Amino acid sequence: MTKTAKIPVGILGATGTVGQRFIQLLEQHPWFEVAWIAASERSFGKTYEEAAKWKMKTPIPKKVASLKLSAADPKGAPKVIFAALDADIAREMEPAFAGAGCAVISNSSAFRMHPQVPLVIPEINADHIKLIDSQSWRKQSGGFMVTNSNCSVMGLALALAPLHKAFGIEAIFAVTMQAISGAGYPGVPSMDILGNVVPFIRNEEEKMQEEAGKLLGTLKAHEVAPADFVISSHCNRVAVEDGHTESISIKLKKRATAEEIIAAWRDFRGMVTDLNLPFAPEVPIFYDERPDRPQPRLDIERGHGMTVSCGRLRPCSLLDWKFTMLSHNTIRGAAGAALLNAELLKAKGYFG
Amino acid sequence: MTKTAKIPVGILGATGTVGQRFIQLLEQHPWFEVAWIAASERSFGKTYEEAAKWKMKTPIPKKVASLKLSAADPKGAPKVIFAALDADIAREMEPAFAGAGCAVISNSSAFRMHPQVPLVIPEINADHIKLIDSQSWRKQSGGFMVTNSNCSVMGLALALAPLHKAFGIEAIFAVTMQAISGAGYPGVPSMDILGNVVPFIRNEEEKMQEEAGKLLGTLKAHEVAPADFVISSHCNRVAVEDGHTESISIKLKKRATAEEIIAAWRDFRGMVTDLNLPFAPEVPIFYDERPDRPQPRLDIERGHGMTVSCGRLRPCSLLDWKFTMLSHNTIRGAAGAALLNAELLKAKGYFG
Amino acid sequence: MTKTAKIPVGILGATGTVGQRFIQLLEQHPWFEVAWIAASERSFGKTYEEAAKWKMKTPIPKKVASLKLSAADPKGAPKVIFAALDADIAREMEPAFAGAGCAVISNSSAFRMHPQVPLVIPEINADHIKLIDSQSWRKQSGGFMVTNSNCSVMGLALALAPLHKAFGIEAIFAVTMQAISGAGYPGVPSMDILGNVVPFIRNEEEKMQEEAGKLLGTLKAHEVAPADFVISSHCNRVAVEDGHTESISIKLKKRATAEEIIAAWRDFRGMVTDLNLPFAPEVPIFYDERPDRPQPRLDIERGHGMTVSCGRLRPCSLLDWKFTMLSHNTIRGAAGAALLNAELLKAKGYFG
Amino acid sequence: MTKTAKIPVGILGATGTVGQRFIQLLEQHPWFEVAWIAASERSFGKTYEEAAKWKMKTPIPKKVASLKLSAADPKGAPKVIFAALDADIAREMEPAFAGAGCAVISNSSAFRMHPQVPLVIPEINADHIKLIDSQSWRKQSGGFMVTNSNCSVMGLALALAPLHKAFGIEAIFAVTMQAISGAGYPGVPSMDILGNVVPFIRNEEEKMQEEAGKLLGTLKAHEVAPADFVISSHCNRVAVEDGHTESISIKLKKRATAEEIIAAWRDFRGMVTDLNLPFAPEVPIFYDERPDRPQPRLDIERGHGMTVSCGRLRPCSLLDWKFTMLSHNTIRGAAGAALLNAELLKAKGYFG
Repeated sequence: MTKTAKIPVGILGATGTVGQRFIQLLEQHPWFEVAWIAASERSFGKTYEEAAKWKMKTPIPKKVASLKLSAADPKGAPKVIFAALDADIAREMEPAFAGAGCAVISNSSAFRMHPQVPLVIPEINADHIKLIDSQSWRKQSGGFMVTNSNCSVMGLALALAPLHKAFGIEAIFAVTMQAISGAGYPGVPSMDILGNVVPFIRNEEEKMQEEAGKLLGTLKAHEVAPADFVISSHCNRVAVEDGHTESISIKLKKRATAEEIIAAWRDFRGMVTDLNLPFAPEVPIFYDERPDRPQPRLDIERGHGMTVSCGRLRPCSLLDWKFTMLSHNTIRGAAGAALLNAELLKAKGYFG
Repeated sequence: MTKTAKIPVGILGATGTVGQRFIQLLEQHPWFEVAWIAASERSFGKTYEEAAKWKMKTPIPKKVASLKLSAADPKGAPKVIFAALDADIAREMEPAFAGAGCAVISNSSAFRMHPQVPLVIPEINADHIKLIDSQSWRKQSGGFMVTNSNCSVMGLALALAPLHKAFGIEAIFAVTMQAISGAGYPGVPSMDILGNVVPFIRNEEEKMQEEAGKLLGTLKAHEVAPADFVISSHCNRVAVEDGHTESISIKLKKRATAEEIIAAWRDFRGMVTDLNLPFAPEVPIFYDERPDRPQPRLDIERGHGMTVSCGRLRPCSLLDWKFTMLSHNTIRGAAGAALLNAELLKAKGYFG
Repeated sequence: MTKTAKIPVGILGATGTVGQRFIQLLEQHPWFEVAWIAASERSFGKTYEEAAKWKMKTPIPKKVASLKLSAADPKGAPKVIFAALDADIAREMEPAFAGAGCAVISNSSAFRMHPQVPLVIPEINADHIKLIDSQSWRKQSGGFMVTNSNCSVMGLALALAPLHKAFGIEAIFAVTMQAISGAGYPGVPSMDILGNVVPFIRNEEEKMQEEAGKLLGTLKAHEVAPADFVISSHCNRVAVEDGHTESISIKLKKRATAEEIIAAWRDFRGMVTDLNLPFAPEVPIFYDERPDRPQPRLDIERGHGMTVSCGRLRPCSLLDWKFTMLSHNTIRGAAGAALLNAELLKAKGYFG
Repeated sequence: MTKTAKIPVGILGATGTVGQRFIQLLEQHPWFEVAWIAASERSFGKTYEEAAKWKMKTPIPKKVASLKLSAADPKGAPKVIFAALDADIAREMEPAFAGAGCAVISNSSAFRMHPQVPLVIPEINADHIKLIDSQSWRKQSGGFMVTNSNCSVMGLALALAPLHKAFGIEAIFAVTMQAISGAGYPGVPSMDILGNVVPFIRNEEEKMQEEAGKLLGTLKAHEVAPADFVISSHCNRVAVEDGHTESISIKLKKRATAEEIIAAWRDFRGMVTDLNLPFAPEVPIFYDERPDRPQPRLDIERGHGMTVSCGRLRPCSLLDWKFTMLSHNTIRGAAGAALLNAELLKAKGYFG
């Protein structure tokens, strides 16, 4: 491989909302290039331009526009696969690809809680990728699987990580106001959300508890011991395009002042600073001092959508502290998260 | 007074959002009729139709349309006054009217926490109106003042009231998603809220703690001993026209099952059932069993905007129970609340 | 039939958006009552409450909530049928019901342009129902079919009708800004319309030309000679829940002043004033003099959703006059239109 | 001046919506740098960060954040001034600056129709800047004034320009659906526009006729002979953040096929191709072949907000052709337009 050759990657579920985001974010990626795409059967053989209802705000990258959709079969697929599949389909398809020797970087919920599948946010728990070595796929074919968390958890886990390390966290109260893009396309009917709030997102509250625990947990021999905090969450859908806003209260194990908390956020750089990952934001967590921020419409693009914004830190009369957190649900919370995972794996030598 | 004669009432701040709602709700009221209106100086002498930027969805009632705006002076004003003023103006004007012998039914925050001014939701604490007898205005001129709470508190207090009585409440976590109409007109700029969430409403979180305590408090000799629960709240503005949605968790003093809580809500009729108040809803609290309800766009008109909707009762891993609550912020949370207070006062003989 | 007995009616497509509106509007109808409902096969045998995703703002009428969904078969169906079906399904099902002796009052586009099927807005062309006598179904079984127009045409045709009669219309330019409810449920994905305009609605521009011509056309022996004006339209979808707003310019055959046009609208009562139809609005067309009206959020409920609002009449530098028109797309433009057609048929003796 | 020294520029009205956009767009400009800012008196002496309610989606450029606001006085101001003032203020202040020797590049409507003030879109009528030589300010002090058009006109004029040149235009029908950002901040109250359409924007329709005529007019000795087409427009406000969408019909003087029109748009490069202006888009007009485009949410950023999108070209039954046009109202329609004018003036040697 010459110095400038990029690693060819494939995308499963390439025509959906997260698949489109993958293609957009990979357009000028220095390490990877989209070489293979697959979607549902009815798209097979069409060009991407014909098959996808493209909803991104930048044009379809020219190379991908004319790429033909392949059958979702590991034969002929590249060795690095981004998977943007619904959980039901992922449950069958992702093991098939991992078993055939592919590195499957998945955004689906299907295997997130599987004991040998790492659930990773590189800044927080890059070390969890060692679980890969325990995977049966790895042993058989060299293939493996890595996942990122639910979009409502990603920003929360990042905001908690430095506090968890510095002070310990005992309890978390989190109420989400989630963007419509989190439900994909066609997703939320406009009749349901225009001028409205929907106080229910299926399975979301359950995922928040278990995934946050695994992300902030400790790697043991062949599995992760989850963090021992309690999370209670309420998940709501609001009329916002991109960006999950969360009202969060926390109880710490060790006392901390507002200054200490803000410093912990500001100083946080995470476990990947020495790796120079192209998609890692310079500042993973930005604390905004303005009294009415962060706001999705204004702050979501910070760090190209990879920086989590916190604001309004103030005492909580029930737990210790309360604050507002915002993260970009389809970049930091989905495609960008997976991309960063892939960069970590590459940097750590997992792509051969 | 003949059987059909209605009590003439005046409206201070008649051209604002809450003032308009008063005029709309009073259009066909069996007991009261709008006889006098006042607003800021620049409206003086104009007809209501000329002066008001009418934003209600029903036409201006004909009688009021041609009514001329008076100066905001107790001379010539009726004895019953609904006040829909900004707090700064209310602070001066409401005592002037009460001191001149008027019954001031106020929606402003200016005197809510004044020890001798009752803060009333008739179903919850109708007995608090006895505080009136301690008011200096009452002693001097016969005038007095009664207030209703902030729009974010009203629905919360109603949802808590039957549980507080039956089981005792120790702690409350509440995150609001509040409608734009709560900020009046012009209020929230569209650039701030379209497709957005604003995680800050000035003074709102402070009001939630103190007003809920007073509403659910106990009447002592000359003041109210506040309820002893702790409230922690986060207040957010969302792109909803009418209807504040709240994600609420509670810790009870005495254990209760979901069935017992729902029964407490459903059986609740409040302290005014025997008074036949025209604006009192048949059902003050409706528990909606559908998994994704209540929603502002669909459920806000229940009980003509006077019924509070609860839904999604489920265990909270941190406190005891969590649920969603919805109430109409400009009816149950403002003009309708004041109107119900006036009906209570009339029924109790305070209007002579 | 005793004095108070109501005519039993059936609803085809009862669970969809228009079907729901039928059920809502019929709840307290003095002449009709819902006795039979049908929807797609997967709903068969369920109660309405179980089968429908009810999206109206009033609760499901109690009687209908427990009604079981029947198979869509004329056997066992009442003789009066409201049809709220997609065009493809209507094309097969409506003739089956008409052929079996039912009066089919259809909201679908399937047979609107059929030469023997009247396309009716009672105030405009009640006389067109005579076409029924030419229908083959009528001759065979007594059954027949009557339709109402597309939701984008209804308000336009009403606004044009008095001008067409008084002055003649030569040309119409109409640009629509249509509400999301016009596309049914789930209909428009929120990702497509939140903070957006979609400048395309399939087949809508074509329908506007042909349906307006038939509505304002002249009844001949066995068919309608369409009005001879030219319509050019642009159809757009906007983020509005209910209410189609249209920017309209017109060229008249005979000169008219603004006063004459407004008078023609205000004086218009239509062809049904002597019939006392319960759902006919007192004022079919309301001219609003305020400079920034009509607006969907504020004016859509006028006349219980059956009154069309016009405003901003001013000279057009290209044609003669321009103005804004607003009508409620799921009441005046769909279910309410069909209901008014049914009332006309009843009053004219077509229901036996 | 060394090769890399940038021209210092000042901004009048720096804290408003258009002023903010100027500051954002100038952040990395190769020719200009913000050296001086002024706003209303109450901001005087504050830093920009303190004074501005910054509503852009990128952070305040660091250099500007700490810049202090000056009094709006030509003394001490740079020689190149971008003016983002309300018309009333502009009417007094812009001549003061031009009279004091400044080049005033104005976005206000105050002097757009002044016979000696060029109203310029560089791609269309760069030659009109010769009017500057006739300005009395120019003769006295060397200062001068150049303006850009209203945001609703800019995209329309660009879409018309190549057709006007190739085929001649006789008549235009245009209905706008304009974004809220066009009204500045606080601008449109959310209560007016959420889920709504407002069919009125003061003076907008008048500006469309006269400004489009001047933009596409012909430079004579000391003034511009306006183009002789007739425009009839309806202006509406919709719940869109950025991007004016317009439904347009046109009558040409010379017949043209759809292919010829699309080719005229696609081939259009304008009068500035040889000048290498940094902010000139590569493609001034993009024709989008997808049936439901352009849409503001998806297409507004094309060409960094400087490309106008057209779509849906189809025959008009009344005039000749109809299509949809979209342009970014605060970039191509305001700050970006003025910036491009400044680049033109620099390239043509007007900045000394």
